Parts: sequence; structure tokens; C-alpha cells
Amino acid sequence: MKRPIISLLTDFGSSDHYVGAMKGVILGICPDAQLVDISHEITPYAITEGAFTLSQAWTCFPAGTIHLVVVDPGVGSSRRPILVEAAGHYFVGPDNGGFTMVYEAVPEYNVREITASRYFGQPVSRTFHGRDIFSPVAAHVGSGVAASEFGDPIKDFQQLTLAEPIQTAPNTWQGRILKIDRFGNVITNFSSKTWLRLATGPFELRIGTTRVTRMAATYVEAPLQNLFFIIGSSGFLEISLNQGSAAKSTAARAGDAIELRLQ
Amino acid sequence: MKRPIISLLTDFGSSDHYVGAMKGVILGICPDAQLVDISHEITPYAITEGAFTLSQAWTCFPAGTIHLVVVDPGVGSSRRPILVEAAGHYFVGPDNGGFTMVYEAVPEYNVREITASRYFGQPVSRTFHGRDIFSPVAAHVGSGVAASEFGDPIKDFQQLTLAEPIQTAPNTWQGRILKIDRFGNVITNFSSKTWLRLATGPFELRIGTTRVTRMAATYVEAPLQNLFFIIGSSGFLEISLNQGSAAKSTAARAGDAIELRLQ
Amino acid sequence: MKRPIISLLTDFGSSDHYVGAMKGVILGICPDAQLVDISHEITPYAITEGAFTLSQAWTCFPAGTIHLVVVDPGVGSSRRPILVEAAGHYFVGPDNGGFTMVYEAVPEYNVREITASRYFGQPVSRTFHGRDIFSPVAAHVGSGVAASEFGDPIKDFQQLTLAEPIQTAPNTWQGRILKIDRFGNVITNFSSKTWLRLATGPFELRIGTTRVTRMAATYVEAPLQNLFFIIGSSGFLEISLNQGSAAKSTAARAGDAIELRLQ
Repeated sequence: MKRPIISLLTDFGSSDHYVGAMKGVILGICPDAQLVDISHEITPYAITEGAFTLSQAWTCFPAGTIHLVVVDPGVGSSRRPILVEAAGHYFVGPDNGGFTMVYEAVPEYNVREITASRYFGQPVSRTFHGRDIFSPVAAHVGSGVAASEFGDPIKDFQQLTLAEPIQTAPNTWQGRILKIDRFGNVITNFSSKTWLRLATGPFELRIGTTRVTRMAATYVEAPLQNLFFIIGSSGFLEISLNQGSAAKSTAARAGDAIELRLQ
Repeated sequence: MKRPIISLLTDFGSSDHYVGAMKGVILGICPDAQLVDISHEITPYAITEGAFTLSQAWTCFPAGTIHLVVVDPGVGSSRRPILVEAAGHYFVGPDNGGFTMVYEAVPEYNVREITASRYFGQPVSRTFHGRDIFSPVAAHVGSGVAASEFGDPIKDFQQLTLAEPIQTAPNTWQGRILKIDRFGNVITNFSSKTWLRLATGPFELRIGTTRVTRMAATYVEAPLQNLFFIIGSSGFLEISLNQGSAAKSTAARAGDAIELRLQ
Repeated sequence: MKRPIISLLTDFGSSDHYVGAMKGVILGICPDAQLVDISHEITPYAITEGAFTLSQAWTCFPAGTIHLVVVDPGVGSSRRPILVEAAGHYFVGPDNGGFTMVYEAVPEYNVREITASRYFGQPVSRTFHGRDIFSPVAAHVGSGVAASEFGDPIKDFQQLTLAEPIQTAPNTWQGRILKIDRFGNVITNFSSKTWLRLATGPFELRIGTTRVTRMAATYVEAPLQNLFFIIGSSGFLEISLNQGSAAKSTAARAGDAIELRLQ
């Protein structure tokens, strides 16, 4: 029998006890779980960054995987815990839009409000639902409890407006920076599809006072210390610097605007 | 058969080979182990911080779990390696007080000095007992070797004075900051029990030049950018800031004093 | 049946989705894998630091372990993916010298160019071979595919010159700093063997303007805040400071020169 895979994605960091506590709870319920950290270094409370990171990782896992996603600025408020089924995967977390890019990636999905408190840890604290609600629910899913046991489907779940680039002038579109990665690559919200549609002639990218016009197909083909753009492994347009940090070079930060101008 | 769970808690960080080496040693002895990181980002040599972090995580794991705890400023000195049994859990590490909060949390426990060098890696280095003593012992416990095989019980093990708050004036108690967490929450050593006993009327908390008088039951009910205190998921009084860092706002650091004054 | 162990060592950091994506791919192919992180915090593109870190960890794992090592500044270039067999272990990664210290540590080894693209993920991106080539190959090795299936042996693989210390004057040798560890220990490339051969009389180590003449056998026997040198658990000469950072005290950085002078 295959061991259930439970992935974890949070903004809890790795210096505190939070993630260890969650894993202890899971293993108490589902001792066979194969636990896999996606990341615990999401910027605190940054739901969009979590949503992007999830979108890049979950599709690599086999069907049946349970993804436990806790970036939860609203813990203790009335925001609902939800269980999502999509493409044979399960997603457990707060209903705050963190699963938006999952909803966008699949033809069909199902969202349930988790109400069956018999599957929660007891007592439920008001500040750590990762330990008291989301981990035990994920573990029970891993142990074979049917999704329908946890609560009824809902339609009014939250979705982020992930700001598709918008046209601001005849030949100009404004996008946003989704994330700066470890290598200083600046990941924008121009998907490869959008970019192929828009970039019908020579163009430049403007990020602050910097202009980027060079395209590359691989990181190494660009001259050292020259900015270029590339369709990254994420499927989005990225600004990069061969063996350097494009983010430092441009002073770009997540959330900043970026402009595409046809020439 | 259930796989033995071995949790790891160290100050070794995650950039060096230290943790990987320990895990390799464990899996050579106990290939079925379910390895779970609690944290490797304890401040180097900070035994109290390790003790607090352990206290928050170990109770979430199922009985039978082996907790490998190596925050070990005395490596190479005559401090003893110990094996603790408490509430059906096992704890392996140096005898430097790191298990103090385990001793305090259970009605009964048993501490053994680990002397059976046949269970050590060979040769034992003088600088890396995590790899050469503690990991192989934890792995042998996981493989089913009885605790009594490792050495005899001792009574003169180390305990930290974890500084319960002390009364410094008729209506004033002085406590300490145990830890700053990833979110900037300032965790004090006023337990919920102590606080309920002391805070019999209106009061304020003083931390440096800052005064905090607002209480909240959840993080989100407090106005943004206002300091408040809360009984955190740790069971201790914490100073927090809704979606901000209370630590930055108050310049508080682990070990600093904090004062509770009845008004 | 024992579960195959796959260790991971990269410069991908822990905040992005990269490592999670690799693990998802592995578990899709080899669901029983025991995944172990050695480190993902290698300085970006620092092949030598990766090679040193691997050398300190891999020998702690049992034979049969598969080590997935991706520090890959040349991703997308013509550098080859390779599979190394040494001492019953497997090593998968780019052919850029990252396995040099493995080659040096064993009497015999075998290097193959990985050419069997039927074992790759499809499509293979140009920027993330960790996910698309190295992870699936490691997983297939873990699932029992014979090494010979992946490609033919090669002889012209890359090796780093790991700069053994060189004699620069009758009583003077110049070495290099391999790594600064989490505790600020300065790890040099003087192996214990080299040092025993050279240090036939009183001597000093010079690192920048600092001179170190005190030797210690353990960290704790040295006075607090005094620099000393020690044969670390790595088997190399290290400059250390009892409960302090030798790196901060000497302003040393990886790659810097260090001089050993007989007096």
C-alpha cells in the first residue's frame, strides 16, 4: 500500500516549533504519512506569494497528494477552513484565496467548508489552527476519511485577483512582480501565453528606471552581469542576471509594477 | 508495524552538513525511521531557547517518539550524554538542562546516563557528538534496544532555572522574554496560570519604555499596528502586533526583562 | 524490503518551490523513497562549497544511498548530467566538479554520462534540470533501474583543483578557506594528514592580520574569546573561538588565503 503524501507550505519559518508541532499531530493520526516540506519561508501573511509557490510545486506531485497550506493572517477570525479536491489532489487550508491558482489550473474542482469538528484537535486554540484544525484534517484525509465527511460544498469561497497585466496605453501593459526567488530572479505575472500574444514586435520591459530588451533561452547564454528576460521554469516571464541577482540590480520587490512596451 | 519516529532539534543550522550527517547515521542503524525536523535554527548554544521550543513541540507527537536534542555548548567537556523517558517518549541529548521543561511537564520521568559505548559511532570525535553519540543512540532506541541497555539511572542531572516571574514590589512582578518568534511575537515566561493568579485587576505590561494594556483573544481582533497581549498557543503571555512585529516595535530581545504592574 | 534513501544537496534555498517540486517528482516515480535533505543553503553557484559539504555527509549514509546534488551554474549549457557509482553509493548531478571529493575519497569509482532521455521528465525545461532530469533519474535509480541503463561510462569528467596548500617559502605554506560554518568556524583546506606532515615544530597560522598559535583538542578547553585551531570533525584544520565566531573575529570568508608558518 502506498504511503499517503502530505506536503506542507506555510509562512511559519523554520526556527520555531510551529512546523514540528504540526508534523507531530499528523503522525499521531496518520503514522505512515510521507511528509514533504514545500516551503515554510513564505513572507509572513503573503497569501499571493504562497499561492504562486503552491502553483509551481503541486503539479509535480502524484495524484492523491494532500497539500496542507497555512498562510493565515486571519487565524481566529471567521474565515472558514476549506478542503479542495482538484485533479485528484487534496488541498487543506484557510479560505483566503491561497488556492486561487489551483482553481485556475484545472477544469473542475470542488471546495468544501470543513465543519466536522470531530476531526479537529481538542481544544482548538484561537491562534494556531495549523496545529489544531488543518493538520488533523489533512492527516485524516491521509488515513482514508472521505472528503464528504468533513463538510458540505460551498460556492462562495475566496479568490485573489492575481492581477493579469493590464493595458495602460496603446502599446503598453502593466504587470506585477509575483516573487523574487533565491537567485534574485524577478518573476512577473506575464505568463508565457500572455507574452506571446502581446509581444508581437520589438519591445522593452521597464522595471523602475531599468530597461531590459535582451531575451535569452537559458541563463548561461547571456553575458555575465547583463540583465535579460527569459520564460522561466515557472511559465512566467522573469528578469534575470547570469550568476547575479536581477532583484538587487533593479531594486525590484514583490508587488512592484513592471511595464511591457512595444517599440 | 509502525515506523519509529525520531524528531531532531538542534542549533546546527541548515546550511552545513551537520544535520545531514546525523540523519545518515540514523538511517544506517534504523532504516525505517520517520525523521522529523523540529528546528535546527535554535540560536547557537541557547539551551533555554531549545528547551522552550522542545516543550512546545514534543507533546504534539505520539507516544514512542524519540526526540534527539543537540544544543551542546559543552561538547567535548565532561558533560554527560543522557537518555530520558517521560510520558512514553524518549529524549536523547547532552545533560545541560535542555530537558528541564520536559521534567516540569510530566508527573514522572527517568533519566539515565548513556555509558554503553558499544552503541556509539566509532571513533567518537571530540567535536561532533551529535553524529557520533546522540544519533546512533537515538537510532538504536528506534530499533528497539531497551532504555536500560544504555546506562544506569542518575539523580544529579542538570536543570535550568527558567526564572518564574518574581515579585519586585507590592504590585509588580518581573519576568523574562523566552523567545521572539518568526512573526515578532514576544513570548514571556508568564504562564497563563501565573497570569490568572496575578492579574486580579487592571494592569499594564512594561517592556523597555513601552506599555501594553490591551488584551486580545485572537490576533485579528486587535486594530492593525496596536500592541496587545494575548495568551498564545504556547500557553504563555505574548506581546503581539496584528500583522506586524511586536519585537521590532518594542526592540525586545530574548532574555530581556518584562514587568507586570497592577494599577 | 528497505526503502531507498535519496539525499538532496542544492543551492536552491528553502523559500522557493524548487526543492518541493523535485521531491514531488521523485515521489511520483519512487513513492517509497526516504528523502533526506543534506542542505539547500549552499551559496548560489558555489560548486566547491557544495563539494565540501557533500564530502562531509555522504560517508555517514548507508551503502545504496542515492545522493542528488544540484549546484548548477551551467544549467541549460552543454555540461553533461552524470551518474557516479562509488563505494556502493550513487551520485546524480551535473558534471561540473561537484563530485571531486567523492572521487578523491574512494579507491574506485565509475562515472556515466546520463543520456537515456526516456528517464527524464517531459518536456525538459532549459532552466530547471533539477526537476526535469536529475530528480527523475535519481528516482529511477531508487526504483531499481540499473546504472548501466542511463548511459555509458566516460573518462573526461570534470574535477576541481581543490588547491592543496602550496609551499611559498622554506617554512611557509599557503592554503585556502573552504567554508565558514554556522558557528563561525573557519574550515581550511589543511587536512589533518597534511598538517601532521608539515607542522613539525612550533608554528603559527596567519589569516589576514590575525595570528593564531594556540591549539585545542575540544572547543570548550579554550578560554572564551580566544582564537585557537583544532582538527575539526571534518578532518580539516579549523580556526575557532569558544562560543564565538572565529569568522567574524578574523573577517575571514570562504576562498580567502591562510598561511601556515613554522617558527
